[in-house]
Amino acid sequence: MTQSTENFSSQPDSTPIPPGSVGIVSPEYIHFTEPLALASGQVLPQYSLAVETYGTLNHDRSNAVLVCHALNASHHVAGISAENPKDVGWWDNMVGPGKALDTNRFFVIGVNNIGSCFGSTGPASINPDTGKPWGAAFPMLTVKDWVHAQARLADYFGIRKFAAVMGGSLGGMQALGWAITCPDRVENCIVIASTPRLSAQNIGFNEVARRAIITDPDFHGGDYYAHNTVPRRGLALARMVGHITYLSDDDMAAKFGRTQRAPAENGEFHYGYDVEFEVESYLRYQGEKFSNYFDANTYLLITRALDYFDPARHYHGDLAKALSTATANFLLVSFTTDWRFPPSRSREIVQALLKNHLPVTYAEIDAPHGHDAFLLDDRRYHAVMQGYYDQIARELNLGERAETLGVLA
Amino acid sequence: MTQSTENFSSQPDSTPIPPGSVGIVSPEYIHFTEPLALASGQVLPQYSLAVETYGTLNHDRSNAVLVCHALNASHHVAGISAENPKDVGWWDNMVGPGKALDTNRFFVIGVNNIGSCFGSTGPASINPDTGKPWGAAFPMLTVKDWVHAQARLADYFGIRKFAAVMGGSLGGMQALGWAITCPDRVENCIVIASTPRLSAQNIGFNEVARRAIITDPDFHGGDYYAHNTVPRRGLALARMVGHITYLSDDDMAAKFGRTQRAPAENGEFHYGYDVEFEVESYLRYQGEKFSNYFDANTYLLITRALDYFDPARHYHGDLAKALSTATANFLLVSFTTDWRFPPSRSREIVQALLKNHLPVTYAEIDAPHGHDAFLLDDRRYHAVMQGYYDQIARELNLGERAETLGVLA
Repeated sequence: MTQSTENFSSQPDSTPIPPGSVGIVSPEYIHFTEPLALASGQVLPQYSLAVETYGTLNHDRSNAVLVCHALNASHHVAGISAENPKDVGWWDNMVGPGKALDTNRFFVIGVNNIGSCFGSTGPASINPDTGKPWGAAFPMLTVKDWVHAQARLADYFGIRKFAAVMGGSLGGMQALGWAITCPDRVENCIVIASTPRLSAQNIGFNEVARRAIITDPDFHGGDYYAHNTVPRRGLALARMVGHITYLSDDDMAAKFGRTQRAPAENGEFHYGYDVEFEVESYLRYQGEKFSNYFDANTYLLITRALDYFDPARHYHGDLAKALSTATANFLLVSFTTDWRFPPSRSREIVQALLKNHLPVTYAEIDAPHGHDAFLLDDRRYHAVMQGYYDQIARELNLGERAETLGVLA
Repeated sequence: MTQSTENFSSQPDSTPIPPGSVGIVSPEYIHFTEPLALASGQVLPQYSLAVETYGTLNHDRSNAVLVCHALNASHHVAGISAENPKDVGWWDNMVGPGKALDTNRFFVIGVNNIGSCFGSTGPASINPDTGKPWGAAFPMLTVKDWVHAQARLADYFGIRKFAAVMGGSLGGMQALGWAITCPDRVENCIVIASTPRLSAQNIGFNEVARRAIITDPDFHGGDYYAHNTVPRRGLALARMVGHITYLSDDDMAAKFGRTQRAPAENGEFHYGYDVEFEVESYLRYQGEKFSNYFDANTYLLITRALDYFDPARHYHGDLAKALSTATANFLLVSFTTDWRFPPSRSREIVQALLKNHLPVTYAEIDAPHGHDAFLLDDRRYHAVMQGYYDQIARELNLGERAETLGVLA
């Protein structure tokens, strides 16, 4: 077993490290004191970013990959959290020694976005000016703001150009934002299960989620921290409706169908509003779990950033023009049953890139799992990712893949 | 202008009656004192049904059509409400003199289901045993229960057999329920934009709506009437999420796209959680409007009845067996962009009927408006309906169509 775990301090014997894992990981918190001017016109005076890194930055700092997260994820991309051995990174199946994004060759950075609630400065953080949580006063953010904050993180690491910037869903928007805003700092842009802009339906679902949170009496105009409470009902509803849009109809049919949770005698219904069907139990559980760890203001802020994302907006809707500054190589991946950001939206990006004569690889993966597919361990999907990263490694002379996870496992 | 308005008492000059309208209409309230045994095992001791009728019942009572309503509709199917001249029946484009369901030849009955909130006995009605609103104590209902209540209504009118029982969405389930439960009382069964059972995704959206209502602090366990309040927030959320599922993605794109509601200077965003996009404004408006007239307990009850509907359930999932008692002629209609109850579900019913060697006409209408299409005035859709009703009229010797709305208008 050859694992690149040398950059992790503690690895107690009690936690077994599976093959292909980056091992036990801890975040670092990097503070930035230079004010960040935001798209909204507001300024974030200072901020911290929670960051995890895997693998080793090479001598000429050419092997760095930035992984951008989606709505509810974080900097904890891979490995096992030192604080909680059950907390495995959200893209652990993608990132690790011998995996598609091979940490034996690449230096991978996971960063929690500002505005989020997993260690980077966000609405729940203390506003140094008031000594109280920012709450409703935390400025609104956009994808571009996140790119700017991440660019400073690249500076911090002395990385002039990323071998790749990569993300799924909202993470893919950030990768696209990088390619547009900082073209000379992105060798490869990898956009998975994403879209050039939210549709009216997408915005509609986001708005339902936001109204659920904002109309929850425990929201207190966003300053619920001062009331020692959390808009738990609204947050749970937001998660439930979101969750349905992440899964495909077929996937839900396969997972739950109309299976009853705990039928009455003779398989009968209970005739009431308690859980009758497995799918209700699952959604309630997901909603409740989420409301225990996610910050409501972060949910509002990130769904709004999703709504706002629309690089073609200042080009009369011409996405090709919006992408005309880009110089990266592109990989676009979509999933057939993703009805949140369906393949047609990825194809739109592909077309706009081709109009700019940019090198684009596009893979449309036939997968049953809807939008969530980008997080799952699909063989064909990961084969595409591995092939693409192998090509990057060859082009950047990062060495050959020593062995694949398949050999390791 | 030849209008069949002779059975309506008042028609003030102030309200212009458009061609093809049944005119100004008023409901009647029919009280049933015989207890109704329900699928849940409970018994509804007595109940009233709010009813509207259009056209004239012929001598041998063979020209009656029962129109069943969906979640939020009522007995007010066609014409102009005597109480409110702006209140036009929900299927007015379908029902009237010279329209597809021609009231010059057919006697049409619109009935508000028990459990609803438009005049028939429901959770907001006074429970005679307590002198207070039923509230949470109102019994749960199923599609079969509605069919039983409607059968008594048929008895009241002396109608042995309907020329047709017809409905869209949940109304289609009732039509199907009639064909299964009372096969000798249905000459034609017309099932539009419906399904033989809700999918996990369908149930999931219903569950989100119910949780929004039930977790609203103003719900008071369903007895909000006693608290002089209404779970308005929850009801508005329920309607918003429901509404998104009634429209197609394309239709929302065409109607709203990413159009901003009242942009800031230079077309900029406001960067906040107030309305930015037209689609948000629309959904909020729909939600608020709905919460002002619809009863929350009714919403819970009817979504649950939707969840429960599954005639194949007691036949090991074999829909053909569930339909083996049916003897009616069938018309099934679905709409290509209906992702709530997509064409595949209607086709499943068609297949099950064909297995039983029943005469089935099936039309899959290429329409952009999603599930809502069944309520809209689509030329091809209405041509199918008119053709089918003309055929019924011929078979039952109800006379020829005098003129079509196209001639009248």
